[in-house]
Amino acid sequence: MWSESAYGVAMPADPKRVVADLLELRALTSEPVEGGAPQTVCGRPSDEPPLGSARLAWTEPWMRAREWFVSTFDGIPVEINTDPAGNLWVTLPGARPDRVVVGSHLDSVPNGGWLDGALGVLAGAEILRGLHRDGVELPVSFSVVDWADEEGARFGRSLFGSGAVSGTLDVEAVRNLVDNGGRHLGEVVAEHGVELETALTAGDAVSSIVSSAELHIEQGPLLEAADLAIAALHGILGVERRLIRLKGQACHAGATPIPMRRDPTVAASRMAIEIRELGLQHDAFTTVGVWRVHPSVPTAVNSRTEFSVDMRHLSRDTLDALVTGLEELVGRIAGEENVEAEIDVLWSIDPIAFEPDLIEFAADAVETRSGTRQIMPSGPMHDSAEMALAGIPTVMMFVQSLNGLSHTHIEDTREDHLEQAVAAFDDLVRKMIPWSAGRAT
Amino acid sequence: MWSESAYGVAMPADPKRVVADLLELRALTSEPVEGGAPQTVCGRPSDEPPLGSARLAWTEPWMRAREWFVSTFDGIPVEINTDPAGNLWVTLPGARPDRVVVGSHLDSVPNGGWLDGALGVLAGAEILRGLHRDGVELPVSFSVVDWADEEGARFGRSLFGSGAVSGTLDVEAVRNLVDNGGRHLGEVVAEHGVELETALTAGDAVSSIVSSAELHIEQGPLLEAADLAIAALHGILGVERRLIRLKGQACHAGATPIPMRRDPTVAASRMAIEIRELGLQHDAFTTVGVWRVHPSVPTAVNSRTEFSVDMRHLSRDTLDALVTGLEELVGRIAGEENVEAEIDVLWSIDPIAFEPDLIEFAADAVETRSGTRQIMPSGPMHDSAEMALAGIPTVMMFVQSLNGLSHTHIEDTREDHLEQAVAAFDDLVRKMIPWSAGRAT
Repeated sequence: MWSESAYGVAMPADPKRVVADLLELRALTSEPVEGGAPQTVCGRPSDEPPLGSARLAWTEPWMRAREWFVSTFDGIPVEINTDPAGNLWVTLPGARPDRVVVGSHLDSVPNGGWLDGALGVLAGAEILRGLHRDGVELPVSFSVVDWADEEGARFGRSLFGSGAVSGTLDVEAVRNLVDNGGRHLGEVVAEHGVELETALTAGDAVSSIVSSAELHIEQGPLLEAADLAIAALHGILGVERRLIRLKGQACHAGATPIPMRRDPTVAASRMAIEIRELGLQHDAFTTVGVWRVHPSVPTAVNSRTEFSVDMRHLSRDTLDALVTGLEELVGRIAGEENVEAEIDVLWSIDPIAFEPDLIEFAADAVETRSGTRQIMPSGPMHDSAEMALAGIPTVMMFVQSLNGLSHTHIEDTREDHLEQAVAAFDDLVRKMIPWSAGRAT
Repeated sequence: MWSESAYGVAMPADPKRVVADLLELRALTSEPVEGGAPQTVCGRPSDEPPLGSARLAWTEPWMRAREWFVSTFDGIPVEINTDPAGNLWVTLPGARPDRVVVGSHLDSVPNGGWLDGALGVLAGAEILRGLHRDGVELPVSFSVVDWADEEGARFGRSLFGSGAVSGTLDVEAVRNLVDNGGRHLGEVVAEHGVELETALTAGDAVSSIVSSAELHIEQGPLLEAADLAIAALHGILGVERRLIRLKGQACHAGATPIPMRRDPTVAASRMAIEIRELGLQHDAFTTVGVWRVHPSVPTAVNSRTEFSVDMRHLSRDTLDALVTGLEELVGRIAGEENVEAEIDVLWSIDPIAFEPDLIEFAADAVETRSGTRQIMPSGPMHDSAEMALAGIPTVMMFVQSLNGLSHTHIEDTREDHLEQAVAAFDDLVRKMIPWSAGRAT
């Protein structure tokens, strides 16, 4: 029977193979970025023209990435299947069908980075191959999953495939989402074998999953700022997202004296500044992103201004305090500026806590490989959130992003950090397997 | 010879005829405003569906308005001609070709008001008819002019026709301006007999114009707030208009802590608030109108934010102080927020002072007809600014706008205020004619 000790004498995942695979996938599925900034690859300046990842979900480059991905298992006795939500599963059978799942996503935003999502999938693939190379019997099965359409970059709905598995996907709400070409989501996914009527049956997989893990780039600057390569995650921040809609009175820029105005743009500006203060007070993330004004001409005070507020924290209580604080400041400033204010809820999700045992394993692995026991939360959402919401013990690991950048062709991570991350993630999986076997009993 | 005393015994302009003409033009050239707010007409609630003025320059409704306008001179020995810039002149010849000009514009913004521009043209027409009814010989000629495309609502260039006469129109700069239908200005005006190559020869008219006057709605709330119907104007505010372009660093809303951000939208918000303070300090008009952010998604700090600043005052020194103050605050806040800032000049025009004698005449007429000697500046630009820039002694008069609104179908003015304005404006013209005859000698 496979045991943890097998690791030391066997052939673990090869971090250099993962980097090589990532570069191969990059060469296969990138497109030139016209006028794009110069980029680094593996942390080294590149003299090639800027290349961005083109693996938009439900397109030919994405399919090409998947075909290539499947080919990396040639000669390994894996079971490969695509579920009713379009997720691609590669399973190395163990003694029992219960399984440990490692997954992320091959899809990308347009002109995206080479590592966002792909790192987790290709690291998982190499870990699977490493387990096969060990040649010992797995007590449970091991699956690598490529979640379908994590980014939602084409239709605006993130976490499509993992949301179908967890059951949070509202198939009727997404059916008529439209891409820039005017095509409907329902029609496009059907061309890839996904029928929305049956997509949620992908959730049948949940009962067989004992635990799950994901390796991902940080997409933020914290590890780089702390001069750390990798970290374990204790959870994903909860999100409260609002749209603030302000209505004042348009008037001519040269005719209505300032004291007589009802200017929603100045009111919004005051709110934006206090929203930043609110975030600082609560050690939270608060962001004003969308901002629209009407009529948006130089010669008139605007009649309307609306803006989005995204607030994130790991504590539900703090999120509640942020919501209360936002409502207070919007109401107060709107009153002082004599504008009408409405607050629409755009999104609300509780903080997600990962499994304590798995966090310990991940932190142990991070400490062993990097010398520092770093545990942090994720601000961005990930497919792992859906796993945790489905009740599956879950954990994640981050590797540093250079300059904290993602969703751009200049996203990058140093090669030694990638290798360290793959090694630590392999350590984690090697501990999850016996732990999961114990729980599956 | 005609003399000022002729007024008392003759048939002056009939204010009720002007209101009737305005209503007839409204019926002829308005379109329903789908979902528009209920409107008043002459200050009285209207039970008809909302109607907006459709006299967009260089379109069929505008041409229809002009044809109807010309027909109101039937039976009067006027000379009618359209000049090389598309301005429509109606002249009642006097003893000499030197002339007093009264003008405004029949064109409107889409879904515009019934009085903006049309009031000045139709009041001028009735004053001309009144002079003819007097039957006395004019010492100078008298022209009513309908300036072409004052609003610039179709191609974005205001004061087209009057700018051609004054010589401020840059014909090469406007040639390729494009309307929403993708058509070029040069092509469209050519269909109305205006060749850009020769448009500036319309300026030949300047040498024959001894003085000019314009009656216009206020387009602001000051007269209503002061419970006054009409006012003389001592000039038009100068304008300094800028575009502030800020560049920060986009990042994920949940990944980069607030203190590590370079957020151009928060920087812009701080600037917008200080720009309002700057205006208040200098008793000036300062307005942030245009406001654009990129990428404008809820989940990211923006990489770019740009906004327009419109600053107006009657004093050149104060305008200079506003420009200096703007540059100071933009530079300081950009530095504090670690964003890059650029300031583009969009528009710069000196304050325009009207002719002191004519201001006195206008103020006298306002006092006689309303009981209050009110003199104020105009914030909005008018064709009269171009007349003054051409060196022609010029003055304007305002009538109250209900709720200070214009450029909307709900723009309106009380009937008694319209009548008072026409009577006062007629008084003004009756004084301008002998004054102009004296200067023309």
